[in-house]
Amino acid sequence: MGRPERPNAAARDGARRVSIAAVAAAAGVSPTTVSHALSGSRSVRAETRERVIRVAEELGYAPNRLASGLRLRRTGVIGLASDHIATTPFAGLIVQGAQEAARERGAVLMVVDSEGDHELEARQLRSLIDHRVDGILLARMFHQHVPRPDALGSTPVVLVDAVPESDWHVPSIAPEEHSIATVAIEHLVEHGHRRIGLAMTTDDSLAGRGREAGFHTALTEAGLGGTAPLVARGSSDAAGGRAAGRRLLDRAVSERPTAIFCFNDQMAMGVYQAAAALGLAVPADCSVVGVDDLGIVAAALDPGLTTVALPHREMGRWGMSTLLDLIDSGGQARDVEQVQLRCELVERASVAAPPDVRLRR
Amino acid sequence: MGRPERPNAAARDGARRVSIAAVAAAAGVSPTTVSHALSGSRSVRAETRERVIRVAEELGYAPNRLASGLRLRRTGVIGLASDHIATTPFAGLIVQGAQEAARERGAVLMVVDSEGDHELEARQLRSLIDHRVDGILLARMFHQHVPRPDALGSTPVVLVDAVPESDWHVPSIAPEEHSIATVAIEHLVEHGHRRIGLAMTTDDSLAGRGREAGFHTALTEAGLGGTAPLVARGSSDAAGGRAAGRRLLDRAVSERPTAIFCFNDQMAMGVYQAAAALGLAVPADCSVVGVDDLGIVAAALDPGLTTVALPHREMGRWGMSTLLDLIDSGGQARDVEQVQLRCELVERASVAAPPDVRLRR
Repeated sequence: MGRPERPNAAARDGARRVSIAAVAAAAGVSPTTVSHALSGSRSVRAETRERVIRVAEELGYAPNRLASGLRLRRTGVIGLASDHIATTPFAGLIVQGAQEAARERGAVLMVVDSEGDHELEARQLRSLIDHRVDGILLARMFHQHVPRPDALGSTPVVLVDAVPESDWHVPSIAPEEHSIATVAIEHLVEHGHRRIGLAMTTDDSLAGRGREAGFHTALTEAGLGGTAPLVARGSSDAAGGRAAGRRLLDRAVSERPTAIFCFNDQMAMGVYQAAAALGLAVPADCSVVGVDDLGIVAAALDPGLTTVALPHREMGRWGMSTLLDLIDSGGQARDVEQVQLRCELVERASVAAPPDVRLRR
Repeated sequence: MGRPERPNAAARDGARRVSIAAVAAAAGVSPTTVSHALSGSRSVRAETRERVIRVAEELGYAPNRLASGLRLRRTGVIGLASDHIATTPFAGLIVQGAQEAARERGAVLMVVDSEGDHELEARQLRSLIDHRVDGILLARMFHQHVPRPDALGSTPVVLVDAVPESDWHVPSIAPEEHSIATVAIEHLVEHGHRRIGLAMTTDDSLAGRGREAGFHTALTEAGLGGTAPLVARGSSDAAGGRAAGRRLLDRAVSERPTAIFCFNDQMAMGVYQAAAALGLAVPADCSVVGVDDLGIVAAALDPGLTTVALPHREMGRWGMSTLLDLIDSGGQARDVEQVQLRCELVERASVAAPPDVRLRR
């Protein structure tokens, strides 16, 4: 995993010069409590233990003692704290990927879901830490920046489908948002499309901004930047896709996009419906590309939807492996990687050459 | 919650006559270990503690001591052990319902998912018990009979979307499978349908058998039992529904069902596609009813799918409330209820009177 590196300057420079007395003073406890805390003894209250470990880390006190201390505390249980497992259909794939990686290394996964409630998440994290999980995967169901939760203490953590705020140094993995639109638009341009529409969500998010920016960038790179962009917005579900699709498709054939890139598979389902309502066939009259590769939608549509897969399962797998490596190394991050995964196209049957190109052939 | 009742005959009859020495002998430990185990002391290994508590229960030793022992061990954490959270789209609703009920009573929910692997589930249950959860919700993503997992020890448990095997006395909640088909068929008959088809899964399950039996019973009760049943089978997804739908609909109008009841919403999505491919409109030419009320499918289809809702969220809520009551009562089940929830129809736009009835009007 590349060259050793610690996120903390003090840890790098002062590791050998800090005494246990200094840690005790800084943490406001006795030296005995410090050594008990670092060896994970139950005689020290969880809050105190976490505070001492945090202070020891901040001062860069004896990383090896600290590492062995952390190893002593291992329970073989990893916590996964998510914000929307219950309400997003693909959340399960992150859990599944994390669980696969956990099983391969004999760890048990415990999941908590805050449903976006930060107060609840703080309680859940404290509860996981009180139950002495070896580490925590912090998952977000929509790519976003995440501040460091205070409740974490010194527990090793890795972010999934999220990016840490600039002052927080932890490994993370997220989709490379720009690549999503690029992959889709390049595929459509290769098939000869020049009038490409965008069915965009009205929600504001990193994901949405990244896909819309990527759409315009890709059009420009394809030499189609000059043409007035065909963008319609709706809710990020089938109804929103139906409305956006109708606005894009209900116009003279010379004005109509020959292909539509959709914010997600559910909006793509709505675009199929708008096309059918207007007597247009997918892909003969209009090609469609989605995002997510949500099996229950993309594979279920007729014709099957060509879509850019969001690698939820892979992100879960990477997050868990990285977290277990971090724990094996005694909680000291070697590389603090911010991984951005390039997304791949899953080809089904919703893309063909545009009508005019077919006629010319 | 009704009259007191204990699942265990010995507990009922012998509660006052069993000595701590008898428990110690039966469990093969010292009386001191027994009292430590029953008070939840960490000085006793988890396996020993669970064995002692189980033996004490079997012999009916001092239920009140046991109850207070259980109370001493409260952590405010409830485990939810499921078999298919990651792979079933509605699993999240059980988690969500359970979490709502947990939050109202200040409990934190921790979820483990065995993905159907019994060996893994046993490890997960032991891990939850080692972490001293107050109780466990055992959820199955498809209505089925569940044997008592040995790993449970004396931890209070409630089953969700499942029924305990006859020798296991725990509260449980599941959909009333027969009612699902009854509700759907009665609705179609009220609209004047007489030739009703069934798009059935090829998977064998309690759910499948219950819905198919309910379909035939409901037809008989509606005086339509004589007619040869129109049943076609496929995989329990859109592709399976498409295949079954095509076989049911691709025939002379006088032979064709005017309505199709589908095993689930995903098969119903396939029936929509089969109808469209044959130039038939839903509901003008063929009415469709699904099962699940899977928002991402039922509400997303055009026209919206009329479907029988499976009360996953309600089952999760009931399971958690019942479990927390059980824990408050010291782990002694008062009523051991086997609740079967009647399922309700969610009306959207996929059911209309059949063509011949409309013509007669």
